[in-house]
Amino acid sequence: MPDIPIEELCARYRRLYTAAVADALDDKGQWHQIVDRRIQPLTLEMRVAGPAFTMLGRPERSTDRAIRKGVKAVDALRPHTVAVMDCSGEEITGHWGELLTNGALVRGATGAVIDGGTRDVAAILKMGFPVFSKFRSPADAKGRWNVVDFDCPVTIGGVPVAPGDFIVGDADGVVVVPRDLVVEVLLEAEEVVKTETEIRQRVKDGQSVAKLYMEYKRF
Amino acid sequence: MPDIPIEELCARYRRLYTAAVADALDDKGQWHQIVDRRIQPLTLEMRVAGPAFTMLGRPERSTDRAIRKGVKAVDALRPHTVAVMDCSGEEITGHWGELLTNGALVRGATGAVIDGGTRDVAAILKMGFPVFSKFRSPADAKGRWNVVDFDCPVTIGGVPVAPGDFIVGDADGVVVVPRDLVVEVLLEAEEVVKTETEIRQRVKDGQSVAKLYMEYKRF
Amino acid sequence: MPDIPIEELCARYRRLYTAAVADALDDKGQWHQIVDRRIQPLTLEMRVAGPAFTMLGRPERSTDRAIRKGVKAVDALRPHTVAVMDCSGEEITGHWGELLTNGALVRGATGAVIDGGTRDVAAILKMGFPVFSKFRSPADAKGRWNVVDFDCPVTIGGVPVAPGDFIVGDADGVVVVPRDLVVEVLLEAEEVVKTETEIRQRVKDGQSVAKLYMEYKRF
Amino acid sequence: MPDIPIEELCARYRRLYTAAVADALDDKGQWHQIVDRRIQPLTLEMRVAGPAFTMLGRPERSTDRAIRKGVKAVDALRPHTVAVMDCSGEEITGHWGELLTNGALVRGATGAVIDGGTRDVAAILKMGFPVFSKFRSPADAKGRWNVVDFDCPVTIGGVPVAPGDFIVGDADGVVVVPRDLVVEVLLEAEEVVKTETEIRQRVKDGQSVAKLYMEYKRF
Amino acid sequence: MPDIPIEELCARYRRLYTAAVADALDDKGQWHQIVDRRIQPLTLEMRVAGPAFTMLGRPERSTDRAIRKGVKAVDALRPHTVAVMDCSGEEITGHWGELLTNGALVRGATGAVIDGGTRDVAAILKMGFPVFSKFRSPADAKGRWNVVDFDCPVTIGGVPVAPGDFIVGDADGVVVVPRDLVVEVLLEAEEVVKTETEIRQRVKDGQSVAKLYMEYKRF
Amino acid sequence: MPDIPIEELCARYRRLYTAAVADALDDKGQWHQIVDRRIQPLTLEMRVAGPAFTMLGRPERSTDRAIRKGVKAVDALRPHTVAVMDCSGEEITGHWGELLTNGALVRGATGAVIDGGTRDVAAILKMGFPVFSKFRSPADAKGRWNVVDFDCPVTIGGVPVAPGDFIVGDADGVVVVPRDLVVEVLLEAEEVVKTETEIRQRVKDGQSVAKLYMEYKRF
Repeated sequence: MPDIPIEELCARYRRLYTAAVADALDDKGQWHQIVDRRIQPLTLEMRVAGPAFTMLGRPERSTDRAIRKGVKAVDALRPHTVAVMDCSGEEITGHWGELLTNGALVRGATGAVIDGGTRDVAAILKMGFPVFSKFRSPADAKGRWNVVDFDCPVTIGGVPVAPGDFIVGDADGVVVVPRDLVVEVLLEAEEVVKTETEIRQRVKDGQSVAKLYMEYKRF
Repeated sequence: MPDIPIEELCARYRRLYTAAVADALDDKGQWHQIVDRRIQPLTLEMRVAGPAFTMLGRPERSTDRAIRKGVKAVDALRPHTVAVMDCSGEEITGHWGELLTNGALVRGATGAVIDGGTRDVAAILKMGFPVFSKFRSPADAKGRWNVVDFDCPVTIGGVPVAPGDFIVGDADGVVVVPRDLVVEVLLEAEEVVKTETEIRQRVKDGQSVAKLYMEYKRF
Repeated sequence: MPDIPIEELCARYRRLYTAAVADALDDKGQWHQIVDRRIQPLTLEMRVAGPAFTMLGRPERSTDRAIRKGVKAVDALRPHTVAVMDCSGEEITGHWGELLTNGALVRGATGAVIDGGTRDVAAILKMGFPVFSKFRSPADAKGRWNVVDFDCPVTIGGVPVAPGDFIVGDADGVVVVPRDLVVEVLLEAEEVVKTETEIRQRVKDGQSVAKLYMEYKRF
Repeated sequence: MPDIPIEELCARYRRLYTAAVADALDDKGQWHQIVDRRIQPLTLEMRVAGPAFTMLGRPERSTDRAIRKGVKAVDALRPHTVAVMDCSGEEITGHWGELLTNGALVRGATGAVIDGGTRDVAAILKMGFPVFSKFRSPADAKGRWNVVDFDCPVTIGGVPVAPGDFIVGDADGVVVVPRDLVVEVLLEAEEVVKTETEIRQRVKDGQSVAKLYMEYKRF
Repeated sequence: MPDIPIEELCARYRRLYTAAVADALDDKGQWHQIVDRRIQPLTLEMRVAGPAFTMLGRPERSTDRAIRKGVKAVDALRPHTVAVMDCSGEEITGHWGELLTNGALVRGATGAVIDGGTRDVAAILKMGFPVFSKFRSPADAKGRWNVVDFDCPVTIGGVPVAPGDFIVGDADGVVVVPRDLVVEVLLEAEEVVKTETEIRQRVKDGQSVAKLYMEYKRF
Repeated sequence: MPDIPIEELCARYRRLYTAAVADALDDKGQWHQIVDRRIQPLTLEMRVAGPAFTMLGRPERSTDRAIRKGVKAVDALRPHTVAVMDCSGEEITGHWGELLTNGALVRGATGAVIDGGTRDVAAILKMGFPVFSKFRSPADAKGRWNVVDFDCPVTIGGVPVAPGDFIVGDADGVVVVPRDLVVEVLLEAEEVVKTETEIRQRVKDGQSVAKLYMEYKRF
């Protein structure tokens, strides 16, 4: 596999779309890399592509401010990464919000995928930072939920994510590309797109979809 | 009933809104023609109106490309029709996508109502083709789900649909007008709209809603 | 507490965001004032703030038009208020629609929060009236559901609302401020915003989020 | 309507089954008196019939023991009544438990219908007290939820219940008979049972169900 | 394939368990023959095995008793069959009840699988007739739902069922064996059971599960 | 804290009930140790208490039998432990079954808590082995889901579980006692039970629940 610099990798994945990436993963026998479909972007225009920076939290009633590891996690965010939050199924809190978004932007992170809730949605939309989550809620994490670890293995939407796995998201939802397959899947997904562009043109020209299917063996 | 050409029928239904059509159906004792409210348009601007072209599929793990009847279904799509897909409750796949949209557009179909998922959402939005579905997902049908029949009776969102039943959808959701009632319901729904326009004006003039209700027997 | 005129109260709350109001409520031990997160605005731009005008309805199959108390409720709507509808869990009907919106606008009401469905969505969007609800549906209330009381205690999204409690909603969802705390919570939420603005600036300047957290004791 | 003493009323309703009572309610145009089907008895053998003693509670994080009105409610329970709890949709707590059951038994209450959770299930089963609820959970109400009123109007499973409305429950679920209709519905439901017993015998004798249906106009 | 009389077929399938049948179906590439897991028996002891007698119904508000096709369906039930009801997703009604059970018993039917609700549960339990359904509810079908066809293709719990497909159910749930595979799957499932009995004995003797797995290639 | 041998610890916890353990955990500020209430025992009589032996699995379509780590996990099960399975949200498979039960019994394990499905339910009931799970399903794990690790940190029903944390389950559901608190919580829960026994007796004697509440500060 060729070695592709991270900037280029992110840029090329961002030009793709999740459906093509999902097809490439299927072709490699990776049938379960699609995140639970309830995790969706705040708006249909949002796109994200980058290596995962993982965070893990759990429900927690204490309001003791000394114990919040989340702030350390934000300081540790690395350029190009996508913040990925496993919220342990908590379904009340807005786990990601405006200040986290600002912290992420300053550190060069490029998006967030939250198996939980987003708050400060209006402010985040103004910043144009892509956030994918299961729901929106104004409820603060303080006294409800707390980050307990980061840069650790997590599960989002039923898919395991290790730090460095590649996250790709758009209006269709989110897929996870395992770290070892990042280049391989990119190249294959780019092929998928090329072929589909050809097919699309011929469909637009009015050719029989059944015939094209027989010729290309895909649709 | 007057005989109305299909172009005019579609155009006049498209000018209506689903709520008025639902009211007219209620008035005829057709209380259960409203599709499960989870089937919604990709954007609030989308509208659809036309006779149903039905497709039926089911979960299927085989990736044998010879057996996909879906491509034949697309070739068979007729002008003015709305593609209606019964997905047998499968909840992972993006059952409708960009290439199907292209095939449908070329053949003059005017929309799709999917009791399942949509993929390639960004591409579909660019084409301006109205798609109503229960969820969005990047997962390909291949190896997950397969069309097994078309132009057959189906059920979407709890409502039976036969080929030729009329489908009307907008930001409120989707209603199904049984084939025999298409003209009758159109005329009645147009009356509903006319009356509501009158009431609306009088409400805006500050008249008592209770009094108007007594006068018009509707609200 | 200072006495603030209702116009100013609404205006200042509207400039806030629900997350700040929720924080202020949390700080006063009011942890359960956040409405079920499934109640969301029709579009992410919608905002609402004002005293609740409550309505209560229940499923009802009769189509006898004499018994609909809903029209009286609309006539009784007061300026600045937000219509708040407890629909007793009915999940088919579009409980709020265009004519109610017109009636509400004429009487100076400023929004609606419906623990149920909205219909005539396209028309409502044109009027720019903010409606928050659990779902969209073209189904008329007639023959399905009926208002049985108004200006009475209700529950929406699990939160009790008495007439005069303050409703605040935006893209994050909806919070309820108990009547007695309206001024107190406003002042505290404005403080929250001020502090967060300071923090935000320092985060953007690249300061450590962990250090800021230690200094401000909030995030 | 004849006046029937409460003991006899309860006994006769307990000999009926909820399906017959639901039929009688339907016949009177009361189509929406069936409680959300997720509220079910702890075991299929449980049956309950009696006038409602209502309680209303809401989520509440305080652990201050002075404020729990629930204990007063138990002291106020009256003989023959069925405790009916509106839990405002809270879905974590075991709202009804062993000590409440003991308090209820001592005061002559005959069952409980909880739009929420039950705890101490093993102990309750030993006492043979019929409890209908939406779920089971070991979580205490203290610090989670609190009774705020009793002998007041409530809503359970989407059905409004006023003190004195009659509650009937068995393996099928729960129905609510409005206070004014208690005798009328009893007599009609007893007729329903009589007719069905006749039909049943003739069905067992092998007669055509279609013919019986034509004769009796019911099934 | 050997030809096996229907009595013997039913008896041998009834001695099996659904998990073994599901394994045999998996082995033939039939991965999607397991009915939605929410369709479960009324008690854990219930078992059913026999050819499907299908019925299809839909929501319907009319109480006109002339139009109920359900009674004809019961008269048409054949010995050994299992009544299979596609309820079009209606979620209020008790679609199957005591009189249907009596009618079914008299005609020699051996069970019912309902993608909907059961009523008269207490009475059905006394008769020992196995009923599998999604929920329990006292609500009558009259005025809510109506059988519109029988002996026709249906879908239950996401699995297509044609008349004559074999239905097998127990405490684990329900599987559907396509008509053509009934004997083949029976023989294979009986092999599965034989092998598992051997493995079970050796596990009980304390042998390593990993070793047995390597030897038998199954677990 | 006194050191209590594991046999005694399990026995004493088994004599308790989950509600008392949950109360003791609440009192220590551990408000979120109650497992999602959908994880319930197969029958109301089942009880379990012991240290967790954790397993983690994920969806996986391969049927390659070489890669199933689950069999190794069973061989590694230790006496007294409760098998705890994190199934990554997969909702089709019966993750726990008869052969696993036999393997567990032979190795002295005392129960299983599965955040997923159980199959072979009838067989498991005969063995009297307590299994708690979210659903029942005949679907085999082979080709659907695979154990990928064991003796590792997992999350079940929203609660993190580390190997050695104590699992207590009964008809109310399941609670998790963090390893460090096992003795402390046992002693406190035993106190809770003692007090409640006293209160119960006085309630049965007809004393005011409100007065007892004031005296004992609990209910």
